Amino acid sequence: MREGRLGVDEGLSRLKGWPFLDLGHTRVDTQRELRCGQAEVVFGEGKTPDQLVEIARAILEKHGRLLATRVRPEAAAALVREIPSAVYRPLSRTLTVDPEPGIREQGLVYVVSAGTSDGGVAEEAAVVARHMGARVGELADVGVAGIHRLLVHANVLRTARALVVVAGMEGALPSVVGGLVDRPVIAVPTSVGYGASFGGLAALLAMLNSCSAGVSVVNIDNGFGAGYLAAMINRNGEEGRG
Amino acid sequence: MREGRLGVDEGLSRLKGWPFLDLGHTRVDTQRELRCGQAEVVFGEGKTPDQLVEIARAILEKHGRLLATRVRPEAAAALVREIPSAVYRPLSRTLTVDPEPGIREQGLVYVVSAGTSDGGVAEEAAVVARHMGARVGELADVGVAGIHRLLVHANVLRTARALVVVAGMEGALPSVVGGLVDRPVIAVPTSVGYGASFGGLAALLAMLNSCSAGVSVVNIDNGFGAGYLAAMINRNGEEGRG
Amino acid sequence: MREGRLGVDEGLSRLKGWPFLDLGHTRVDTQRELRCGQAEVVFGEGKTPDQLVEIARAILEKHGRLLATRVRPEAAAALVREIPSAVYRPLSRTLTVDPEPGIREQGLVYVVSAGTSDGGVAEEAAVVARHMGARVGELADVGVAGIHRLLVHANVLRTARALVVVAGMEGALPSVVGGLVDRPVIAVPTSVGYGASFGGLAALLAMLNSCSAGVSVVNIDNGFGAGYLAAMINRNGEEGRG
Amino acid sequence: MREGRLGVDEGLSRLKGWPFLDLGHTRVDTQRELRCGQAEVVFGEGKTPDQLVEIARAILEKHGRLLATRVRPEAAAALVREIPSAVYRPLSRTLTVDPEPGIREQGLVYVVSAGTSDGGVAEEAAVVARHMGARVGELADVGVAGIHRLLVHANVLRTARALVVVAGMEGALPSVVGGLVDRPVIAVPTSVGYGASFGGLAALLAMLNSCSAGVSVVNIDNGFGAGYLAAMINRNGEEGRG
Amino acid sequence: MREGRLGVDEGLSRLKGWPFLDLGHTRVDTQRELRCGQAEVVFGEGKTPDQLVEIARAILEKHGRLLATRVRPEAAAALVREIPSAVYRPLSRTLTVDPEPGIREQGLVYVVSAGTSDGGVAEEAAVVARHMGARVGELADVGVAGIHRLLVHANVLRTARALVVVAGMEGALPSVVGGLVDRPVIAVPTSVGYGASFGGLAALLAMLNSCSAGVSVVNIDNGFGAGYLAAMINRNGEEGRG
Amino acid sequence: MREGRLGVDEGLSRLKGWPFLDLGHTRVDTQRELRCGQAEVVFGEGKTPDQLVEIARAILEKHGRLLATRVRPEAAAALVREIPSAVYRPLSRTLTVDPEPGIREQGLVYVVSAGTSDGGVAEEAAVVARHMGARVGELADVGVAGIHRLLVHANVLRTARALVVVAGMEGALPSVVGGLVDRPVIAVPTSVGYGASFGGLAALLAMLNSCSAGVSVVNIDNGFGAGYLAAMINRNGEEGRG
Amino acid sequence: MREGRLGVDEGLSRLKGWPFLDLGHTRVDTQRELRCGQAEVVFGEGKTPDQLVEIARAILEKHGRLLATRVRPEAAAALVREIPSAVYRPLSRTLTVDPEPGIREQGLVYVVSAGTSDGGVAEEAAVVARHMGARVGELADVGVAGIHRLLVHANVLRTARALVVVAGMEGALPSVVGGLVDRPVIAVPTSVGYGASFGGLAALLAMLNSCSAGVSVVNIDNGFGAGYLAAMINRNGEEGRG
Amino acid sequence: MREGRLGVDEGLSRLKGWPFLDLGHTRVDTQRELRCGQAEVVFGEGKTPDQLVEIARAILEKHGRLLATRVRPEAAAALVREIPSAVYRPLSRTLTVDPEPGIREQGLVYVVSAGTSDGGVAEEAAVVARHMGARVGELADVGVAGIHRLLVHANVLRTARALVVVAGMEGALPSVVGGLVDRPVIAVPTSVGYGASFGGLAALLAMLNSCSAGVSVVNIDNGFGAGYLAAMINRNGEEGRG
Repeated sequence: MREGRLGVDEGLSRLKGWPFLDLGHTRVDTQRELRCGQAEVVFGEGKTPDQLVEIARAILEKHGRLLATRVRPEAAAALVREIPSAVYRPLSRTLTVDPEPGIREQGLVYVVSAGTSDGGVAEEAAVVARHMGARVGELADVGVAGIHRLLVHANVLRTARALVVVAGMEGALPSVVGGLVDRPVIAVPTSVGYGASFGGLAALLAMLNSCSAGVSVVNIDNGFGAGYLAAMINRNGEEGRG
Repeated sequence: MREGRLGVDEGLSRLKGWPFLDLGHTRVDTQRELRCGQAEVVFGEGKTPDQLVEIARAILEKHGRLLATRVRPEAAAALVREIPSAVYRPLSRTLTVDPEPGIREQGLVYVVSAGTSDGGVAEEAAVVARHMGARVGELADVGVAGIHRLLVHANVLRTARALVVVAGMEGALPSVVGGLVDRPVIAVPTSVGYGASFGGLAALLAMLNSCSAGVSVVNIDNGFGAGYLAAMINRNGEEGRG
Repeated sequence: MREGRLGVDEGLSRLKGWPFLDLGHTRVDTQRELRCGQAEVVFGEGKTPDQLVEIARAILEKHGRLLATRVRPEAAAALVREIPSAVYRPLSRTLTVDPEPGIREQGLVYVVSAGTSDGGVAEEAAVVARHMGARVGELADVGVAGIHRLLVHANVLRTARALVVVAGMEGALPSVVGGLVDRPVIAVPTSVGYGASFGGLAALLAMLNSCSAGVSVVNIDNGFGAGYLAAMINRNGEEGRG
Repeated sequence: MREGRLGVDEGLSRLKGWPFLDLGHTRVDTQRELRCGQAEVVFGEGKTPDQLVEIARAILEKHGRLLATRVRPEAAAALVREIPSAVYRPLSRTLTVDPEPGIREQGLVYVVSAGTSDGGVAEEAAVVARHMGARVGELADVGVAGIHRLLVHANVLRTARALVVVAGMEGALPSVVGGLVDRPVIAVPTSVGYGASFGGLAALLAMLNSCSAGVSVVNIDNGFGAGYLAAMINRNGEEGRG
Repeated sequence: MREGRLGVDEGLSRLKGWPFLDLGHTRVDTQRELRCGQAEVVFGEGKTPDQLVEIARAILEKHGRLLATRVRPEAAAALVREIPSAVYRPLSRTLTVDPEPGIREQGLVYVVSAGTSDGGVAEEAAVVARHMGARVGELADVGVAGIHRLLVHANVLRTARALVVVAGMEGALPSVVGGLVDRPVIAVPTSVGYGASFGGLAALLAMLNSCSAGVSVVNIDNGFGAGYLAAMINRNGEEGRG
Repeated sequence: MREGRLGVDEGLSRLKGWPFLDLGHTRVDTQRELRCGQAEVVFGEGKTPDQLVEIARAILEKHGRLLATRVRPEAAAALVREIPSAVYRPLSRTLTVDPEPGIREQGLVYVVSAGTSDGGVAEEAAVVARHMGARVGELADVGVAGIHRLLVHANVLRTARALVVVAGMEGALPSVVGGLVDRPVIAVPTSVGYGASFGGLAALLAMLNSCSAGVSVVNIDNGFGAGYLAAMINRNGEEGRG
Repeated sequence: MREGRLGVDEGLSRLKGWPFLDLGHTRVDTQRELRCGQAEVVFGEGKTPDQLVEIARAILEKHGRLLATRVRPEAAAALVREIPSAVYRPLSRTLTVDPEPGIREQGLVYVVSAGTSDGGVAEEAAVVARHMGARVGELADVGVAGIHRLLVHANVLRTARALVVVAGMEGALPSVVGGLVDRPVIAVPTSVGYGASFGGLAALLAMLNSCSAGVSVVNIDNGFGAGYLAAMINRNGEEGRG
Repeated sequence: MREGRLGVDEGLSRLKGWPFLDLGHTRVDTQRELRCGQAEVVFGEGKTPDQLVEIARAILEKHGRLLATRVRPEAAAALVREIPSAVYRPLSRTLTVDPEPGIREQGLVYVVSAGTSDGGVAEEAAVVARHMGARVGELADVGVAGIHRLLVHANVLRTARALVVVAGMEGALPSVVGGLVDRPVIAVPTSVGYGASFGGLAALLAMLNSCSAGVSVVNIDNGFGAGYLAAMINRNGEEGRG
């Protein structure tokens, strides 16, 4: 693989079109999102309802779509009041605005979760992946203590281009799923559990030690990151298809 | 449940017959083993070949049988030279002397292990349980990444009175087995793995957080403890039977 | 997302009778409990009073009995209002419905606890074991700092088929009890303590390193798991007896 | 211990074609590899030279190709002696046999590494991905302390379908790369470092906390897992293309 | 380097003039501050509004200037009411009284921060350094996921005599900055993050393992310590200049 | 409690007579030992046989007695060759030179240890305490799994002025002993154990959480520190007696 | 040291007079306190005001004196209302009833603390030691960052029979004090600090690694344990004196 | 502080002169060193004697001076054989080549260390700082257990522009030194210790929690980093002077 001889200036100037410099934006947050292809994503934690409404309007004006994560109910109420087309899902604390929902969904991402308590993180992953253009299937409450419930779905799981597998406690589900399918498995440990779960550490370590190849891990409770990555992998397949 | 009024002296004097006081023994080690019903067990770690030979002879003279764990090859060679009927298993580093092997085996303990590298710990558990009078079945290399290999044995596993389940890395196997059977599962984490396995910590934490009821855990690599406990539970069933 | 064409059913349907497939249940939670022999058990944490009442009614209709753990007082009030025969124990936050209490109790499980603060976890273990059909004895406040209080009960403890030993802080009690009896000891570390107890970690590690054979460990504060396992071992003895 | 009467087979036999049942193999190791699409991969750690030679011959007979990881020099010498077409790379301790090297390589996986000492893990990832059919580019010694060396390659990196980013010490490189590209980044922490690197823990935690979306993490030093996963993602793109 | 022969008494008596002995002070707190050159600094945590007002007045009477850190809003309100010239910054929870703000500022300290949530700690560092006489530049929201935003400021950063670099999550920014400049970089990990950030531990470990020379680390969220140290280093340069 | 008004110089000049200044010594090691009352103690770790011989001669010339800890066998051989009256104990790796052994022993310190493997640390504590002038009793192999062996010695233990209690694994012995006696118990965790003992951490945490009052803890394997402290406490009693 | 031949019954029956058996008490708590010589001590944490009042009255009736620790203000108010002679110290949350305060104080225990925030734990230690009959001196705010404040008191500290040294953050004070005195130093780490203090872990580890001989450690924030142990050591000296 | 408007290309092209691009170097290692001002520094760990000799010659040819750290004795022997003017210090494993040693030394850096075993790390810091142009004073074996040995040097320490303070075990020395001087203190924890020192973690945590302002910390055993940073700070003063 030859590594070209281009100068630093030339190389950098073409990086993703450099919205930061080209557009002379002043709001740094917006630029970060542009640069990473996350133009429409807002992280709601630590922002006041007023701040969120203001940011949401700016994004909608530019992009027409919006995804906000970790939105608390009171902020969600303010957003829905201002933006009637907004949809808030309290379980995952996500809020989306999408004028044409489902119209661009392609490929298939499967979000699998172990227990009822893992539902919020799983829904966040599903909402994010769908917003990034993936068709998403969901399979819940198939923890390894009742392995047969998972197995009857094995053939369906194998049709996905990428899988997000969410589990707390012993975090064993990604290994089992990874053994059933030939596709990338993104494991999300959750902080579900008590005592020696140490806030999700037990599940995190278990997933990092998975004996199944094709499994990688994101941070505890990071449904956003898993859904984002799964949609990215799913798009890989789509591009080739075109 | 009424709690009797017996004095301390009376109570203590009947504790397992008090070999320590009754027999006036001088060798403390032997007495500990008597008291716990482990009369014939020697822990080989940190003992010289000469020490082991001397202890083994003393035990054989009194009990006619012997079980030694964590016996290094050079000590095993010395023991086998001195006690020709001794059987050494290098994988588990166990050594047994049993004039009538298999004759008293009853009930059923199943020892299940996840990977090839867990074999030594699993064999230790099996040898110990057998020596304590249990009939023992073994099922190896049924890690959760290939769950079907485990499932075809589910009905057989359900015939055991107690199960020892040995796994390193993500330590997921006990949860899956615990979901298939109605019997006590003793989980043994092993130090198999690298990096974020942290010497078996990942597997240990996973097992402590098992979502299957009926699972309890012993120390990392403690095949002896698991086999001993399984045989104890297995005997429970036997006593009732008599 | 349609999930197609089960092919596994025939093989799997014989695993434990497969209530999941045979009965065509739709509520997954109920099925997990059936599969593990926990048909009548509800985990109350994170469920609203209304949800708990609904679940409790469904279980009672099918099984006639109920055990709920980690039930908060307000949920308990709603349950007792709806189900007058329900008994709530605030210390252990357990709730039971049993039309014929005590009638099926057999064998003997002993629940031993170290300090007053360990009482809630110990009671949870006792309630669970009793609900699973075990006769249960309880011995409280026999921490190792006053060893004589434990010793006067040694002979009684030896009549149990299994023992649950609950302790926080230094977690030493299971080792001492394990040295007094010949039966399985299930150790439950509790989060009782402060500073270097690190939420029960100190007790957990101590118990995993017990020098007594026959001791295994469950998660911190997991009274349910210990009581469940003890009842399972206790039943072993009963089956043989038949 | 006879293991009876498979009943699950019909349902399970369609999972990935079930070589285990169809072919009646007896060697479990080979089957695990088949099932996960890793038919030609051997984990060399803990195997004697003789064992490795025997396994290698069996695999080559069936598949004509071979990939072995964690092969120590003395085992490699034995393998190369027996299989003259084998190529051993001592830095990554990988050994490959490929009659038509490079012929099936498609797409593009980029393996980026931070320091000279990360080279072994990076090479392992590259060898594995190549063996799984990916065209692979490598970029070494572009640690974040000299960020300009990375930046001049930004445009080339953006042509990859998936990237493996290997770093020890502070583990910062995946975040920087993840901010430059729109493709999945698989982060591999290495045990390179000393003191507060705690055997790679520092890099592992840093990567799990990456502020760049699209980054997931595998176990410390797990070059194999990262290369395997990258090739899997790369294939996604290829399938669509066909 | 010869080490003089002076007696203990002589040596000690000249230590910073020994205000403790010379002045016969009774308030110990004030003396500690004198001795360390922190005469005007109050740590607000755990002090009541009344206590803070009293301490502030005493300090102002003696020194004419005041810096208080970790001042909660209600205490700040009381202080501002009593001392109208006091300036409270709620983001950093700092309060300053300075009759001639900016008049003595010399040299240049740069405070660089990675994310919006790191702003409070960064502001604390800036306020402290300024109060200690440093001219201070600030650069915010230049996290490593968008490395170009940092690079356009590289030349400006190089004009600083010392830099404070504040980052949570993966803590990578100090390494990148350390690679761009030739001056001391004081890294401040923040507790910003969740899950495997473990309250700032991930960022702390990353910074301690920085591959850039010239980087040292202070405690998590310790903006005060970093600003204090940076001003100290900045003063070094000033002294020489005189 | 009035605190005197003496100046710093006066105060310091009387600190233990200041051998450092008074004697104009050049060898720093000797002075540290003088200052702490450890004039005759050498820490053998990391010193060559030659260095140890030289240091030992210097100490013997000045003090006539010597205690060296952590002395490896080869260094011990050199010392015994040079100083024929030296006594080396390989189990504890201690070496002593005492022209009038036992002549000054007073009071009573008891050293109690749990298992055979704790013997080296226990012997180190005993040797040190004896060398510091304490009469020392030893009680070995009285681990809590066989509590009766400890109890028969309870009355003897109560005659000690201070007790050193040495235990590895679960570290429970100090709590039990602390409940039997009214005297200070110095707990010494040992690194004896494996797996979840984490090099003595489990025992250390258990001891810090002891429910017995009167128990304090020293570092893992620090037999020296425990023996030293016990002798110090023992001397307290002696002084009063005079 | 000869170990007598007395039987278990004889030995146990004389243990501290066995109030448990002799007196036929029913209230277990009271007995534990009797057995350990802590007859008058109540641990207030987790007890309701009503429970505390009831317990306090029972103890006062039998012993005439009372010491309660970790008493919350509302419980203290109830106690002071019922027992007018009770003295509550809110800083240490201790409550004492002593008809003849100070009359039995003997010897000298010194309680030294590093920072203002360590005051509560230090006061708890002082109150406990005084209640156990020790004369107690206190020295506060002598942290190692201002070492001269400690040094001027060195001669006074050397008159103590035992010292309690309380410190949070870096926990360095016990080492410095241990180097100044020849008496037992009981180190108490406190949870004072933030970030990498990890709730007192930093101070705890520092104290366990003290390079001064004669230092031992109790649990984080365990002022009670330190004061109790110091009084015990102090009494040693007193006994000899008689 | 205004942030200029320069384009990325312009800004980057002036970064330290860009030797990487300007000079068309091929050897990456050399460039990293140039960029960071470490042109003459080689990290010896993991390099063969032959590699080191080759690298050393290349550096000497370009720069005329050389500093190599972590050089093992056998590599040092080869280097000294090839480069007769090289000076190897086995304690710190550093090797220097300097045609005019001492000629450029300016300012003053003081390297203070706690115990004899910290000497290697301290020497590394001193050698590095000297090689970077600092005049260096050294003060060894002044651990906090003998605080007076440190205090007699207090006035000398105050003449330094920066101090490196090296300590293992409890890591208390930097806090004490930081309280004596008004200059930056760079704390270096060492892995000296055993048991609960956990490889230097105890010292590291203590230093991060230092109550003295002006203290920052580098990685465990990182003498190089501390010496490098101290020289950098020292140079700050020099520049002003010019």
